[in-house]
Amino acid sequence: MTTPAYDRLLNQLKSLHLIQSVQGLLGWDEQVNLPPKSAGFRAEQMAEMARLAHETASDPELGAALTELESQLDALSADQQVVVREARRDYDRVVRLPAEFVSAKARHSSAAYHAWAQARAERDFASYAPFIERHLELAKQEAELQGWGDRPYDYAIDLHDPGFTAERIATLFAELTAGLVPLVRAIEAKAGNEPSALRGFPVDAQRTFLREVTARLGFDYEHGRIDVALHPFCEGSGLDVRMTTRFHEDEPLDSLFSSIHETGHGLYAQGLSAEHQATALGQYVGMAVHESQSRMWENQVGRSRAFWQFFEPRYRELFAGPLTDISSEQLYREINAVRPTLIRVDSDEVHYNLHIILRFEIEQALFAGDLAVRDLPAAWNDRCEALLGCRPQHDAEGVLQDVHWSGGAFGYFPSYCLGNMIAAQNWDRARQVLPELEADFARGDFTRLLDWTRREIHDLGNRHATLALVERVTGQPLSPQPLLAYLRDRYGEIYL
Amino acid sequence: MTTPAYDRLLNQLKSLHLIQSVQGLLGWDEQVNLPPKSAGFRAEQMAEMARLAHETASDPELGAALTELESQLDALSADQQVVVREARRDYDRVVRLPAEFVSAKARHSSAAYHAWAQARAERDFASYAPFIERHLELAKQEAELQGWGDRPYDYAIDLHDPGFTAERIATLFAELTAGLVPLVRAIEAKAGNEPSALRGFPVDAQRTFLREVTARLGFDYEHGRIDVALHPFCEGSGLDVRMTTRFHEDEPLDSLFSSIHETGHGLYAQGLSAEHQATALGQYVGMAVHESQSRMWENQVGRSRAFWQFFEPRYRELFAGPLTDISSEQLYREINAVRPTLIRVDSDEVHYNLHIILRFEIEQALFAGDLAVRDLPAAWNDRCEALLGCRPQHDAEGVLQDVHWSGGAFGYFPSYCLGNMIAAQNWDRARQVLPELEADFARGDFTRLLDWTRREIHDLGNRHATLALVERVTGQPLSPQPLLAYLRDRYGEIYL
Repeated sequence: MTTPAYDRLLNQLKSLHLIQSVQGLLGWDEQVNLPPKSAGFRAEQMAEMARLAHETASDPELGAALTELESQLDALSADQQVVVREARRDYDRVVRLPAEFVSAKARHSSAAYHAWAQARAERDFASYAPFIERHLELAKQEAELQGWGDRPYDYAIDLHDPGFTAERIATLFAELTAGLVPLVRAIEAKAGNEPSALRGFPVDAQRTFLREVTARLGFDYEHGRIDVALHPFCEGSGLDVRMTTRFHEDEPLDSLFSSIHETGHGLYAQGLSAEHQATALGQYVGMAVHESQSRMWENQVGRSRAFWQFFEPRYRELFAGPLTDISSEQLYREINAVRPTLIRVDSDEVHYNLHIILRFEIEQALFAGDLAVRDLPAAWNDRCEALLGCRPQHDAEGVLQDVHWSGGAFGYFPSYCLGNMIAAQNWDRARQVLPELEADFARGDFTRLLDWTRREIHDLGNRHATLALVERVTGQPLSPQPLLAYLRDRYGEIYL
Repeated sequence: MTTPAYDRLLNQLKSLHLIQSVQGLLGWDEQVNLPPKSAGFRAEQMAEMARLAHETASDPELGAALTELESQLDALSADQQVVVREARRDYDRVVRLPAEFVSAKARHSSAAYHAWAQARAERDFASYAPFIERHLELAKQEAELQGWGDRPYDYAIDLHDPGFTAERIATLFAELTAGLVPLVRAIEAKAGNEPSALRGFPVDAQRTFLREVTARLGFDYEHGRIDVALHPFCEGSGLDVRMTTRFHEDEPLDSLFSSIHETGHGLYAQGLSAEHQATALGQYVGMAVHESQSRMWENQVGRSRAFWQFFEPRYRELFAGPLTDISSEQLYREINAVRPTLIRVDSDEVHYNLHIILRFEIEQALFAGDLAVRDLPAAWNDRCEALLGCRPQHDAEGVLQDVHWSGGAFGYFPSYCLGNMIAAQNWDRARQVLPELEADFARGDFTRLLDWTRREIHDLGNRHATLALVERVTGQPLSPQPLLAYLRDRYGEIYL
């Protein structure tokens, strides 16, 4: 059943979704196609689209439709109530921010990005510090405007993963840290630190393999594509998904696994209801759930023995030369190599969560006022040494390595680690109910797992917030134990 | 000097230009990148952008700013008056069309496009005829709404080339036909009709050569790019110009000359003032002038002996194999081959204008009511035989060959021929004032010609309408004689 007010709401949400999809495409095109000197013009196009998106998202007609629908909630179906609930949440968040605040933040982000890039190049934290200070102020001001003035960091987290709080994350991360640090140390003691033996993989053959793998995992190339960009990412909603990767002859696994990772995001995007993509019924739950999809395909699936049982013959066919002296076991160890690094994006799966925990602790201290921005480098380096066992020699390999804070994106890092936890917990559940999964993989068949994620997660859209969804899917509250067990299992078998 | 009203006008025009530039990019992406099954979603994105563009173009605030500025025209500079004049013209044209009319036409165009594609595939004109009928009705209705009810075909022409009328074009085309038909017949008698001897040109080397040529002609790859699409086109304004081409090993000249043609469009786009691209001061004059730029670079320049004096050694270096048995003179004849064809887009430069004259005559008769749609095929075939000396065996190589009418684009074809006339007339003038041009080309230097077009044409934006611009540039009213003289000269030297 539908009502005029509900139809009006849908029309507005559809306009907004289409404008946002165009924004996404412009962003993709900027990374993939933009001529070197067209960036200034693209920025103007993006600003105009942002203005139109804001105008649509804050249209008083939309607010009026919501108010009308809220006065007659009982007449709406459960699904329609979800649509109204999420649209209200988004609408309120948009209208509570004055236009001047939004444009001040955008201007500062742009300036801060350039300051960060220069500071990183020159290893000069001091020049960048005032920009972080100002972003912190803006973040607190924004939380205040949104009615979260007493919990600004919780607000930052909620922006990416509704329902989570710093306290909840701290509890989860403490339990994770307690189990992870001894495991990491034990593996490090056995793993050695040899550089990779994989070199000279021709790019064309990498492209062929990657395309075969991602298609077999289920990525629908009739509604999507993959291109080359500086950084891997995945953009778009189900009807047109654009992934990117990059190629390096001496780092074949970087391209392959970042592509499988993006394929996980792409499968989620393509799995969400195309019919409902303008509303919560066809939208993703939050960053952590999105990341759980990408990480499961990348790690639990892509780095498994069963996966390589199927793909190794083809891999050797395409890369006979560079793999001549590499045994199957050596290849599997390269795929699951554990090597400590100071750089998050270069990190293996075992160390990765420690990089995130470090950042979460730092952000908490910054927001609590327990850490001054000028003291960031020392705090970072100390904590890095304690958690990761190595100390940055300069800030470019320490506190200056990530772009996130330059855009004011606080509270974003935890999603990566929460996504890893959810991936492991989902994976446990999937294997319980589908014991034949790994036999499937060994035959090159991934449909049973994909169908399960479709049914259990994708089909639900954003009907349930992350924590509720995890319980619904796995029958258990979110916990770091499945991740710890998975890491012990996978890496213990190799190294311990 | 500026006023608040003028600033308001500029802001609105800038928004409109940015939205239109995004529409252009979406169109480019559709041809170049779109996944096979994403077309429906792209159509929705395009419709939303069209809605936003229409809303901006017809914003009453824009109309109010114009009215205010028109009441104080004397306070504006000459350039500002140009901006107001053109903005008024565009605004009036937009607001005179009711939204229902615009969407009815868009819906009919979409249906007619599919009907055309099917009719062409099945060589079945009758199934398509009602769609042309309806488009004719819509075109007359539109002219009526715009206040051109007594001259609907003139209105259609004016949409593409303001200032031209059917009568003016008929006079020009009659003079052209009188000179062209005997020339064509004389060349045909001598030229024979051998198929091309150019075969097996590797695509990668074609790409290399094309890139070198277009860059040397002056296309700025820091503000543009070239990609592969089904049809060659050029999209974008000066800060980000996207050209397309296509490759076929056995048709190397198709790709090369269509790319030089698109480069001509691209040079014009890149030559228009970047600062003023949102207003008439940085916008193109009309279709015919745009076409004059592309045709001059393609034909007068790209098919000249001087051009090939410079590029032939490199061409032979890249295509040593396929060119082994081809002498320089043979290559030059291939480049300027004259072969009658029924298909406009496959036509050589000598026959091309006759294809256009045929279409112009047919459109005139349709609008005058002298020709019924059901009689189109016979009229087309008769006139084709008279003008081009060959008769279609079926309608797919006759009246069904072009896409234009399926979109209701009447009055568009004449621009192609007017563009050829203007190109030849400009070229005459350029050679008069710059006698060293061909010596430049032989040295691979095209800057002097490009600078001249910048100065004489590009820099002026849309300050002067086409006919006035031609007189200003060449000192003479537009005439077909320079085109006739050029064709006699170029092709007489080879064939007569």
